[in-house]
Amino acid sequence: MADGSEKNAVVSNRKVIFKDYVFGFPKESDMVVTVDKNLKLKVASDSKDILVKNLYLSCDPYMRLLMTNRSSEIFGPYTPGTPITGFGVSKVIDSRNPEFKEGDLVWGITGWECWEETEQPKQSESTTGMPGLTAYGGFYEVCAPKKGEYVFVSAASGAVGQLVGQFAKLMGCYVVGSAGTQDKVELLKNKFGFDDAFNYKEEPDLNAALKRYFPEGIDIYFENVEGKMLDAVILNMRVHGRIAVCGMISQYNRDQPEGVHNLMSIVYKRVRIEGFAVFDYYPQYSKFLDFILPYIREGKVKYVEDIVEGLENGPAALIGLFSGCNVGKQVIVIAPQ
Amino acid sequence: MADGSEKNAVVSNRKVIFKDYVFGFPKESDMVVTVDKNLKLKVASDSKDILVKNLYLSCDPYMRLLMTNRSSEIFGPYTPGTPITGFGVSKVIDSRNPEFKEGDLVWGITGWECWEETEQPKQSESTTGMPGLTAYGGFYEVCAPKKGEYVFVSAASGAVGQLVGQFAKLMGCYVVGSAGTQDKVELLKNKFGFDDAFNYKEEPDLNAALKRYFPEGIDIYFENVEGKMLDAVILNMRVHGRIAVCGMISQYNRDQPEGVHNLMSIVYKRVRIEGFAVFDYYPQYSKFLDFILPYIREGKVKYVEDIVEGLENGPAALIGLFSGCNVGKQVIVIAPQ
Repeated sequence: MADGSEKNAVVSNRKVIFKDYVFGFPKESDMVVTVDKNLKLKVASDSKDILVKNLYLSCDPYMRLLMTNRSSEIFGPYTPGTPITGFGVSKVIDSRNPEFKEGDLVWGITGWECWEETEQPKQSESTTGMPGLTAYGGFYEVCAPKKGEYVFVSAASGAVGQLVGQFAKLMGCYVVGSAGTQDKVELLKNKFGFDDAFNYKEEPDLNAALKRYFPEGIDIYFENVEGKMLDAVILNMRVHGRIAVCGMISQYNRDQPEGVHNLMSIVYKRVRIEGFAVFDYYPQYSKFLDFILPYIREGKVKYVEDIVEGLENGPAALIGLFSGCNVGKQVIVIAPQ
Repeated sequence: MADGSEKNAVVSNRKVIFKDYVFGFPKESDMVVTVDKNLKLKVASDSKDILVKNLYLSCDPYMRLLMTNRSSEIFGPYTPGTPITGFGVSKVIDSRNPEFKEGDLVWGITGWECWEETEQPKQSESTTGMPGLTAYGGFYEVCAPKKGEYVFVSAASGAVGQLVGQFAKLMGCYVVGSAGTQDKVELLKNKFGFDDAFNYKEEPDLNAALKRYFPEGIDIYFENVEGKMLDAVILNMRVHGRIAVCGMISQYNRDQPEGVHNLMSIVYKRVRIEGFAVFDYYPQYSKFLDFILPYIREGKVKYVEDIVEGLENGPAALIGLFSGCNVGKQVIVIAPQ
């Protein structure tokens, strides 16, 4: 169906509905794909909404947090019975909002459905911004790296980790990554240029593994997983080391977190552990683009996406994040532009 | 015995000997007081040692760490069969070291014995420096406080905590302290000028207690205890809060630390947790004295010491730190000057 004809069309709109709050590991059956028939692709004349066709959806670990009904958190949870949401790229099909016109590409928080009518204007930036800016803010600002320092990245083949490792190499650091399959380990060493990498699932003693890869200790740890890995890393930090924490994927599916037991070592070693969130770095977005785009054009920074086609395959792709099925950034293509 | 006569005297030297490495909660019987007879109070003519009379000894929580044989730590452990050591003030009785002369007052790492012959020159500063500089570096440098912020101090009547609370008030912060007896709570409110204080032993739900004292949340937590208190504080931190960690007294006597389970919240709130040690701030010692001495002279900063007389009472005083027996800085007077 060509764009020009869509405007007057009536379509069936597929949606991924969040069924109910999740305990423990999420399952595909925590979501259900429904179809609303007879959606008119036109905004009513008395409305100020825009109507978009959703093109790409991003699967990100933080989405698991929204599946739990915890009032103490700063992100609101999903509402059972409505579509789940996440970052996405969309195309404006019809608009009664003067800020947007037909054909505009927009990005921002997007419902997991094929078409979406919304009052909320979206950002008009690239969707790759979120993990990229996370890596940029977390590494350069929170970790304050210096040339020659020893850097460890967990979940290193993921959307954020692969960039952190490459930024560390650009800075002249020694960088080792961990991942959950041998293929990912090879990717880290051969595509992303990590100095070394290991499969954490094959290391019965993470403390011993880290001592092997970092006999001098670790200056910077870019933390994506928490749990046993963080406990092992803390024991291997150097004096005045820094740990940047943007996620703790190993803990998202636990009702009772494992706990971290070696915090005493942060006193001995005077270590800083700092949580951060990408939205604190939104003001630096254009500075980040000025930094990264030349490297991407020259092929000096590489980026791997794991692309799944079709909204109906979205639930499986999202669940797969938590068992490490994705290689790189997990994206769902609903409709190629 | 007057100083003048000591030089030619022969004395009995009492010592507090560390018996063996400690597991769990230390006991008085982990130390033993012995007496060496016939110590001549004169340095041999072919030596470069100094001989001191120890006057004051400091009891500090970190000393528990030296009772455990853990090779991974940056402080070496005590040697079984030798006197325990800690900060102390001494007077030079005889010296073959040209840097020191008879009658000098010196401070530094001191053996727990009445007289001590040593090659190691000691610092010649005030013994109140250690906790004072800890409070100063930890609060002003690590916590980076701003006027009007909400500050929570645990172990607040202790040597470090009482100063942190007063520094926070000087800065124009709102400060609440926790302690383990009602008397200490009164001291915090009435002597040290904390805005409020509570007895953590009477709070079955620390999270609820903190929500009551900090309905707006906590900007700065000066951490002295770890364990359940840290877990509760993390849940109550405000966005971009800071936690300075100089000790974790609740964990020193555990072979298996309790663990901290709410670290995910440091991501939601973008909180910084930073370990620090007083020796990183030694270069700022004279700046610290310039800052604190006028306040002490004017009575605007108060300091409470808990003084025990007699070396033989040292083991009980040291053990008492871990059950909160002391009120303020625990000092042992061996010989009033």
